[in-house]
Parts: sequence; C-alpha cells; structure tokens
Amino acid sequence: MDKIKVAILGATGMVGQRYVRLLSNHPWFDISVLSASSSSVGKKYGEIVKWIIEDEIPENVKDITILPAEVEEMKKEGVELIFSALPSEVAYDIELKMAEAGFTVVSDTSAHRMDPDVPLVIPEVNSDHIIAIEEQKRKRKGIIVTGPNCTTIGLAISLKPIHDEFGIKRVLVSTMQALSGAGYFGVPSMAILDNLIPYIKNEEEKVTKEILKILGKYENGFKFANIKIGASCHRVCVLDGHTEVVFLETIKKATPEDIKYCMKNFKGEPQLLSLPTAPLQPIIIREEPDRPQPRIDRLSGKPERAKGMAIVVGRIREELALDNGIKYILLSHNTIRGAAGNAILIAELLKAKNII
Amino acid sequence: MDKIKVAILGATGMVGQRYVRLLSNHPWFDISVLSASSSSVGKKYGEIVKWIIEDEIPENVKDITILPAEVEEMKKEGVELIFSALPSEVAYDIELKMAEAGFTVVSDTSAHRMDPDVPLVIPEVNSDHIIAIEEQKRKRKGIIVTGPNCTTIGLAISLKPIHDEFGIKRVLVSTMQALSGAGYFGVPSMAILDNLIPYIKNEEEKVTKEILKILGKYENGFKFANIKIGASCHRVCVLDGHTEVVFLETIKKATPEDIKYCMKNFKGEPQLLSLPTAPLQPIIIREEPDRPQPRIDRLSGKPERAKGMAIVVGRIREELALDNGIKYILLSHNTIRGAAGNAILIAELLKAKNII
Amino acid sequence: MDKIKVAILGATGMVGQRYVRLLSNHPWFDISVLSASSSSVGKKYGEIVKWIIEDEIPENVKDITILPAEVEEMKKEGVELIFSALPSEVAYDIELKMAEAGFTVVSDTSAHRMDPDVPLVIPEVNSDHIIAIEEQKRKRKGIIVTGPNCTTIGLAISLKPIHDEFGIKRVLVSTMQALSGAGYFGVPSMAILDNLIPYIKNEEEKVTKEILKILGKYENGFKFANIKIGASCHRVCVLDGHTEVVFLETIKKATPEDIKYCMKNFKGEPQLLSLPTAPLQPIIIREEPDRPQPRIDRLSGKPERAKGMAIVVGRIREELALDNGIKYILLSHNTIRGAAGNAILIAELLKAKNII
Amino acid sequence: MDKIKVAILGATGMVGQRYVRLLSNHPWFDISVLSASSSSVGKKYGEIVKWIIEDEIPENVKDITILPAEVEEMKKEGVELIFSALPSEVAYDIELKMAEAGFTVVSDTSAHRMDPDVPLVIPEVNSDHIIAIEEQKRKRKGIIVTGPNCTTIGLAISLKPIHDEFGIKRVLVSTMQALSGAGYFGVPSMAILDNLIPYIKNEEEKVTKEILKILGKYENGFKFANIKIGASCHRVCVLDGHTEVVFLETIKKATPEDIKYCMKNFKGEPQLLSLPTAPLQPIIIREEPDRPQPRIDRLSGKPERAKGMAIVVGRIREELALDNGIKYILLSHNTIRGAAGNAILIAELLKAKNII
Repeated sequence: MDKIKVAILGATGMVGQRYVRLLSNHPWFDISVLSASSSSVGKKYGEIVKWIIEDEIPENVKDITILPAEVEEMKKEGVELIFSALPSEVAYDIELKMAEAGFTVVSDTSAHRMDPDVPLVIPEVNSDHIIAIEEQKRKRKGIIVTGPNCTTIGLAISLKPIHDEFGIKRVLVSTMQALSGAGYFGVPSMAILDNLIPYIKNEEEKVTKEILKILGKYENGFKFANIKIGASCHRVCVLDGHTEVVFLETIKKATPEDIKYCMKNFKGEPQLLSLPTAPLQPIIIREEPDRPQPRIDRLSGKPERAKGMAIVVGRIREELALDNGIKYILLSHNTIRGAAGNAILIAELLKAKNII
Repeated sequence: MDKIKVAILGATGMVGQRYVRLLSNHPWFDISVLSASSSSVGKKYGEIVKWIIEDEIPENVKDITILPAEVEEMKKEGVELIFSALPSEVAYDIELKMAEAGFTVVSDTSAHRMDPDVPLVIPEVNSDHIIAIEEQKRKRKGIIVTGPNCTTIGLAISLKPIHDEFGIKRVLVSTMQALSGAGYFGVPSMAILDNLIPYIKNEEEKVTKEILKILGKYENGFKFANIKIGASCHRVCVLDGHTEVVFLETIKKATPEDIKYCMKNFKGEPQLLSLPTAPLQPIIIREEPDRPQPRIDRLSGKPERAKGMAIVVGRIREELALDNGIKYILLSHNTIRGAAGNAILIAELLKAKNII
Repeated sequence: MDKIKVAILGATGMVGQRYVRLLSNHPWFDISVLSASSSSVGKKYGEIVKWIIEDEIPENVKDITILPAEVEEMKKEGVELIFSALPSEVAYDIELKMAEAGFTVVSDTSAHRMDPDVPLVIPEVNSDHIIAIEEQKRKRKGIIVTGPNCTTIGLAISLKPIHDEFGIKRVLVSTMQALSGAGYFGVPSMAILDNLIPYIKNEEEKVTKEILKILGKYENGFKFANIKIGASCHRVCVLDGHTEVVFLETIKKATPEDIKYCMKNFKGEPQLLSLPTAPLQPIIIREEPDRPQPRIDRLSGKPERAKGMAIVVGRIREELALDNGIKYILLSHNTIRGAAGNAILIAELLKAKNII
Repeated sequence: MDKIKVAILGATGMVGQRYVRLLSNHPWFDISVLSASSSSVGKKYGEIVKWIIEDEIPENVKDITILPAEVEEMKKEGVELIFSALPSEVAYDIELKMAEAGFTVVSDTSAHRMDPDVPLVIPEVNSDHIIAIEEQKRKRKGIIVTGPNCTTIGLAISLKPIHDEFGIKRVLVSTMQALSGAGYFGVPSMAILDNLIPYIKNEEEKVTKEILKILGKYENGFKFANIKIGASCHRVCVLDGHTEVVFLETIKKATPEDIKYCMKNFKGEPQLLSLPTAPLQPIIIREEPDRPQPRIDRLSGKPERAKGMAIVVGRIREELALDNGIKYILLSHNTIRGAAGNAILIAELLKAKNII
C-alpha cells in the first residue's frame, strides 16, 4: 500500500512537534509538507524548529523545507490529508480554504469545532458523528473534521462509558492543567514557579460546550447531550499532562466498582478496527491511592505507538454530597491524546472507513 | 500589663517556627518555654532548629534551652498558656495531661478536635463555641481549645457569611495544597517536581467532618450543620498557600454580586474586639480574572501583624450545573491562618474574654 | 528638607517595580514621574503594571499617570534625578538626551557602562570613580552614572576587600542565575522546569569587562585592574538571587580565615556616610556548610530598608588546585543589590556629596 | 549462549531501579535475585518498590521475591555476578563477604573505590585497570570491581581524550547536580523549590580523589595522575542529569576546535568490542550556544540500549584567565552513565574479557 501524503500546518509549535514525531514513522501516512509562519518559509525544518519533546527530532524530517500554507503548494506535493495545528487567529480561514480546495482537513484548533456540519470527534467516543461530513460534502469538495480541546478529550472519554451505562445528570470538573497546553512561550517561569494560576482563558466555556456536542447524537444535525456541566480550570507547574477532578451524578445508581468495571472494559471503534495509534485499553485504572500522577502516568498506553493515548483514572469513590454521586481523578496527555494523537487517530479512522 | 507566659510544644517544626515568629514580639504573650523531641532537650533553640520561613530566627529565642513537654517544667517556668504543634502520635496524651494539670492548651493538632466537649474554633466564625469549655471545666482543672485543619479553616471562613445570609445546601471542594502542609520532610522533591499528587491521607475526611462541627451550633453539646459536603484533596508544587475550588448550592438564590458583598463585609468577634492578630478584613476579594495566586496572595492581611491571616477569594461565578449554584476560588496561608496564626487568634480571644 | 523629585524610566518592568517599591517611602527622594512604553502612556500605573514582587503595589503610586520619556515632561514635573531601567535598545539615546538636557541620570542599563567618561559604580567599592563626571560636565549640562550588571555587582563586592588586602591575580567564576534576571517574560516555564540553561547571552562578556573597570583606578581616565578573569554563566530555576561560585588566586597568600576576616570587616563610603539604603554590613558571612541559599538568604541586609542589599558569602575554602587558591560561594539579590537598590545607593551617594 | 545469572543488591532504590530496567531484557545477563532491606525480604518486588523512573516496572521482575543479601541465597539461585547499589553504611562488609565467597561484585558504592587492589573503572577510560583484580585473586576467591561517583564519571570521560592528547595540568569544576543523586527521599521539596543548595556532603572530596586514580596508571599498584584538581559541588532543582562547568589548563596548547575534535573522535574498548550497553559515541558535542540542557539531553546515546550512556559536551571555549585555558559544559545522566549503566558496562567488559 502506498502511504498517504500528509501536510502538517503549524509544524513548529508544540502540538506540531507531536505530529511530526508521531507521524515520522507512521505505517499509513507520510509527511510531505511542513508549514509554518511566513518567517520560516524556505528554511529547513531542522534549522528553525526549537525541538523540545522527548527524543531527538526525527532524521527524515530535518531537511524538509518549510512551505507556506497555500493550496497550490499542497497540490504540487500531492498532499491528500492536512493536519492543522495552526494558531487560532488564522486557523478558521486557512482550514476552510483547504477544505474548499478538496483536501481532508483534520484539525486540533477550536476554529470549526462548533460548526453545525463539522464533527467534533474522539474516535472511541463518537466515531458515528463522522457522518456529518455528508452535509459538508454538499457544500464543498473537501471536508473538515475536528478534535476537541485537550481538557475536553480526557473528560469525555471518562464520561462516555458511564453515560452509556448509567446516564449522567450532572458533572462538575476542576482541572490542574499542564504548561504545554499554553504553548512553549505561554506561561513565563516567573508566573508559575512556587505558584499556580487559577484561570485559563476561554477554557471553561470550551469544555462545557464541547462535551455536550460530543456526548450528544447526530441525527440530521447535532443534538446536544442533556447533561448539566460546570468547570473550573487552573494551571499548575507541570510540563505535560492535564489532571481533572470529576464530581458527577448518575441517573441510575452506580457503585465505584460499577464505574471501574465499565471504564476498564470500555472499547471504541479504534480498538475494534485495531487502528495503528489506538491504545489497547483507552482507560487505564490505577488502584493505588495516590495515582494518577502526571509525570509518572502521562505516557500510558500500549502498544509503543499508543504511548500517551490512554487516559488514566484513579480514586473512584462515592460522593455522598451528591445524589448518586461519584468522584474520581483522571489524567490525559494534553498534547498527545489531547491534541496530535487524537487527530491522527481520527485520520486513521477516516482511512479505515475509506473516507480518505 | 504583664505578658502571659506561654509554651510552644513542637517548636522546631514548620508550624512551630510560625508560632515562634508570630509570638516573638507579641503584645500580650511572652515565649517562656520551647519544647521539642527528646533528642533536642537541653540544647539551644537556635542551634537545633532548621529555620526555613521568611526572615531570620528572632534573636530573643535563639538562646532558649529546649525543655521536655512535662507539666513540672511548665510550672517551674510560670507558663499559663500552651500552644501545641505536636506530632499527632503524641499530641492526644500530652495535651490532655497538660489540661488536667490546669493549663490552657490551644492546639493545632487533630487529636482532640472532634471531642464532644472541645471547641473547634475559627475566631471569626464560631467564637461562641468557646462556651463548650464549661463542660471541660467540670472534668478537669484546665482546658483544651482546638483549631481546625489548614484546609478546613479557609473553606469555613469563606462559607460562613454565605451560610448566614443564604443558607448552604451542598458544597463540593477540590483543593490544590501547598508542600509545607506536609511538613518540611513530607514531600520529597523527586515526588513533586513536574508533578502533582492527587491524594492527601485523611485530609478529605477531616475537612468534611470539621466543617460541619464549625458551622453547627453549641447547645448543650455540638449540633452539626446540615450541609452536604464532599472534598477531593491534592498536593501541588507550591511552597505555602492552599488553593481551594469551591462549588456550592445555596438555599436562597444568590448572585455572584450578593456573595461578593457578604464576603467583603464579613467581620467576626476578633475584628470587633480588635485582637492583635486579627486581619482588618478576614476575606479579601480580588477582581482580577486570574487571582488569587498562592505566591502573590498568600501573605494578604493588614495590619503587618495579620499578614497571612486574611483569606483571598476570587472568580466568584454562577454555576449553572447546580441549582442556585455558585463557584469561586479561595486561598489561605496554610501555616499562618491555617495553623499557628489561627491558634494565636484563639488565645487572644480567650484572653479578651478573661478565660486566661 | 524638601525631597528631590525623581523619575523612573522603564517603571513597569521587574527592575522598574523594585525602584517603585524602594522609592515609595524614601526619605530623600520622591517619585514624580513614571515612564513606560508608549502603549502605556496616559494610563495609571496601578492599571497597567503587572505587579509581581513581594508586598502590594504602594498606594501612593497607583494613580500616577504614565508619561513618555521626554525631556519636556521631566522639566514640567520638576524632576532633578532620573533612574533608568529602560530596555537596552532605547536606553543609549534616551539616557544621553536626558543628560544633555541637564538631568542627573542614574542607570542600570548596559548602554553607557563602558563609556570612558562614565563611572560604573558600586558605592561600597569605587565611590571615588564618581570624579569621572567632571569630564562629562565639560561636554554636557547633566551627567550619567551607571551601575554594573547584576552578576558583576555581587562578585565585585566580594573581591574588593580581598583585592585591597592580598591582591588578586586570577578569578574564575561559575554562576547559577535567577529567572528574574531575564525579565518577567524572559524564560518560559517550558524551558526551565526540571532543567537549567547553561548560557546567558553576553553575560560573560559583561561581567569580565565590568569587573576590571570597577576594580581599576580613575586617574585622568579609567585604568583597568590587572586581573585575569574568566566566567561561565548559567540560568537555574530560582526566582530571585544570583549564586556565584568563585575560584581565585591571590598575590599574597591568604587563609580562608584571612578572607573571612577581611570580608566581615569590609565597609565602604555608604556605611561611613550612613546612607539610607546602605546595609550595615555589605558582606554577611554564613558559617553553615550549605549556605548561602537563594530562597533563604536573598533578602539579607539590615536595617529594613537595606533588605536585599547585603551580599552573602559562605563556604570559604582553600583551593589547592590553584597557587594561593581560595574558593567560595556568594549570593546577591539580582534586582535589589544587583540593580535598583544599587542605583538608589548611587543616587544617595551623589546627594551626600552634593552632586545633586 | 546461556545468560549469566545476576543479583542486584539494593534493588528498590533509585539506582537499583535503573539496574532492574537496564537488565530486564539484557542479552547476556538475567536477573535472578533482587535483594533489599530486611523489611522487604519475602515480599514481591512489584509490591514493595516505589517505581519512579520512565516506563513501567518490567513485567518479568514484578513477581520476583526479595531475598536477603546472603551468600547462601546467591548460591542457591546460581548467581555468578552481583551488582551492588547498597546503602553505603552496609556496602563495605557485604561486598567484601560476597567477593570472599567467590562472586564477582560490580559496585556503584563508594565503599571499596579507593582500595589499593580494586579497580575504579569507566570502561571507555581505564579498562586496563582491570588487571588490578589479579592482586585481589591472591587474597580471595572472588573479586570486586567498582564504578566511580556519578559526578566523577562524566568529568573523567570528558577529560580522558584531552589528557591523552594535550596533557592536563589543572582542572576546576563547578557542578549543578540533579536531585536523584541524593536518592528518592534525599532532598525535601521544601528545601529546593525556588532554591539551590551549594553543598553536597563529601562530593568534592570523592570527585577530586577518584579522578586521579582513574586517569592514573596501574603498574604493580595504582599511580595517581599528576593533575591539580579542585571542585565545588551544588544541588539544583533538576530531576536527573548532572551538569558540570569545567575550566582547565592543558600542558600542550589546544584550541577549542582541537578539543572538540578529540572529544568527538574519542572511543574506548567498549566501542571496539561493541558491548551491548556501549554508546556508539561516548561524547556527543552540541553546537548550539545553550546546550547541553539536562531535561533535553540527559537521555543521549545510541543505540536504544545506550540511552543515557553518552555524555554531552557544549560551549567549548578558550579561557583566557588560565594559561592554555579551555572551558566547557558537560552533562551526564547521573543514575544511568553515572551509576547503573556504567556498572553494567563494566560487567559486559568483564564478560568480554572472559573474567566472568
């Protein structure tokens, strides 16, 4: 099988680097184009990227010349699939332009997430939403499929099996989010050392809206889930890995053991299809009283290619202050499962379904 | 007025050091005895303490010789008031022995907090609970008065004006607690750098029980408050200052402005009595979207002597996922307001009421 | 005595904030003008500054309206003395313009430090260099006096008594510098958490050149000291306080006790003149094997106004790998003694000498 | 080929965990015995170890039952080779007892490092010193071979090619060492956050003595190298990876390019023999001005099995303050190259030379 040629837009940022690393030896996809801001165009990726993730920059991308995010450039290189990790201020227009030109765009950005014809997908949770692209196809040659915000993804995966089995009435989530979520230059060291910042701009709004779209249904349009959800989002001094404290009320009474059981056994379409980047088990349960911990657990997930793709849940307890109350802690890697990894899994799903 | 001679038990630990500093130039109290573990007895305080808080060790305590925590030693030195920051495994017996010998014991430890005749006091919140000592006096010559857990104190202060004005039905709290709460050796650097620990042993149990005693009434025994409360407690990489994320339901509907108003205007008996360590305003409201932050706000409180005695509240918002829902962030200094400072304020209250 | 009206240029940066705090209740100087980048002009200081140092922003400066760094504005407000904490790219021209207009400019910036007629002053070390302003006066109405780089200052103070007493032949210094030295946005948290950066641009060059000017003589021009000096400069994850490891060779043999003695007894003109911001003892010696430590020792210095103005030296040992070898560790607060505090001490010296 | 059965003494500590991970799928060695403190004996490794290094605890060691460090236990299990990561207070006697009983002991501990018949080996640097075991064999049935202190190892590797080519007269080293070097509980978070500690007990003495033994010769006894060496050792807030700042004088003049060239081309016996854990290139040169950095560079080394076995050198510059002066920065992983990895490489060397 010939590999599919892909482009990465926003390839030098932190999520861009994750794409490069995860795709550098991918069995189905082949990096053909790397795009970055205009000041980098024409230079070699290895010269301009400030590589900061684990392992070294893959040899086979070092010499790729940065191209502008132009339709013509993509066509010239034979690109079929475009991953977008663009800065939000430019993402809306460029992603749309690419889709109109016929490309399949899989995006991490928030630009088109809430569009009424754009699926917002976590492959294990709502792969059936992909059908919404049919509506897009009536409007343009290509399609846009989006992945949710990094905080939404872990939360939605953890809620999905509970919602299916017991119904969720109400969720309150309090987060402790990693620095990489704000980008390399996002949080000055002077701001966060011996400190935390109890605020992340627009994050609470994104999480609460996106969850309802994801856990809802698509039936000639998105029907949002009927769940009450509230969030309070905070930045802590951790490099990678968002930790979330979840309090919830189920409709049908569930014990902590029930919750643990349904999480442990949860599998989605990526597992059934054995997609390359799918973790064998999307939710890993830790039994120790003091886990999950970001530094220790953030790269969970098997096989090797799915490292950082599993979420880790611990401390599942009854919450007596709520009716049918449950509380637990969850951790997900914000730039792998929460961004590039999820998008690649979406692309693998599209490929497996012959959409690309 | 002659100053009252006081002893500090457990004087070398982190809370012990806070006592030493706050009492080193106190207008009413005079440090006469410093007590520590048997290996330190007979040595000078300045030689054995590993002083780590702001400012240097006060000159006037450096040469005090460590004494054992014995009744006879206290009597010989003319001590009237004993502050206990003892390790929990020995606190129960020693505090009781001291009270039986006639001393007034003010304790930070958890040993006697839930005893049916022992008041658990935050002077601004439930100074009227002190009447419970009458029952103790029927049993022994001296008395024990306790202060709550460091996490409980900030939370209880923030809830008090809301509970008085609107009634609280339900509270869920998620904490991000400082390292000093675990003691100097409590959290290895290898455990917490680039990490957080989503668990603090027994903390959730303490907070939920203590809040109900404090917000309850004393009428021939403690009547616990009728509030549903749940907690999830976590350690983050911050030196001092516990941050708490509070979600709550009021009985009477309240807007964020209502909550802000009643917090801002909240005053307790320490403010009315102008006690030396009382902050002019027990709750400071920050209007910035990203405050309170522990490193910047933990030493809030005026005048100078009350630094670290005010709690700081920010981000008061409506929480639509709860009925009559409100959410906010609070910060309190865990070893000042959350321990030594609160205990000193209790002692000042006892003195102002002529109990000592 | 009427206070002298001063302006602070670059008042919103980290060094600017130190100036504001140290001058907010100064006995001789009165803040009349605060200047910052053009986007802030016309706004109130309290609204635009991102205040991050200890204590709150002083009440009496909150409502000062930011003015542009223009000669006319200074004159209109009756300013006599100008402190410059300007960004280096604009400092050269603005400082010169102000001096030409007749103002006394005391600057922290590197712009004019090495000018042949500009004294580079640490008041305890080379107050006699101020005479170089006579040469400036022949060229312009006002004068420029500069303070050295933050790393240079601590090092020079520690070397001065040794050089006077024993002569220094050779110095090698390896630094561990604080984050605030790079400015609030200088070091991203992603760059430094669980890390260090073994490089600070231009720092080694500045330190080695400046030391020789400072320890040299002024005799119709600056005669640089004849010392061999090498430096390697590194950034570590510490908020404030530069630590320096010094290896040196003396000309006359000195024991560690000799070095300790001459450092302990070192005093300069600020001490003799009892200048307001002068520390009683410019060099504090710590005897503990593991001191100085930045978090614990960086605010050393008495009286209260001189906190952060003393440098702290520890671990003075013989270095057998050098002839007449000595090694020690020194710590100085990089934005107080290393910047704003040193500049204020210079201004106090100019005032005491009736130059302003 | 049958694998050699090995025991790890002190298997639960941080270096012990590195041994377990590096040996869990070793081509020549097979973990037969894990030994730890008496309180762990009889329990399963997976139950008692507080696993904190990257990746999860290897499946094949989880169920190994902890045995005491007794000769009989080793014999019963058919052990031939013993790796010791014992606490220093017990290492001396147990290692000697094991050697006397006929085992080959490869030790990381300092106990026997300076013994006159014990080789102190970095396989790339002084594999010829292994001949000293002949003297041991005259005294006892087994042998002890030791690896140096973690700080010594990186330094010695970097000095070796320079010393061979140009001769080294004098070395001054200033270190910034990682927390893991002190063991998991070694440095409390309260001690090091926003701080550094400019002292590591006994470290400077170890480094300076060990270097001279390693760079010396063995000719009927160890002849120490004739180099003047001084050290100042400091702890910084970094999890893994010791950074060292090296100033040195060569006998023959060398340019930075000369130094770079000889380092880059340096190879030792492990490379010639293609030992499994040998890095292809023992010294990696980074050309960027701000490298090496511990978080980014500490796992350098190829192939996969040799990750963390290469040292990384950067910023090689002329040092004008010394005659024939050179300075550079080096980084080595303190628990891999600096401990377990070096010891395993020693064992591989012994095996390749048919000593085991």
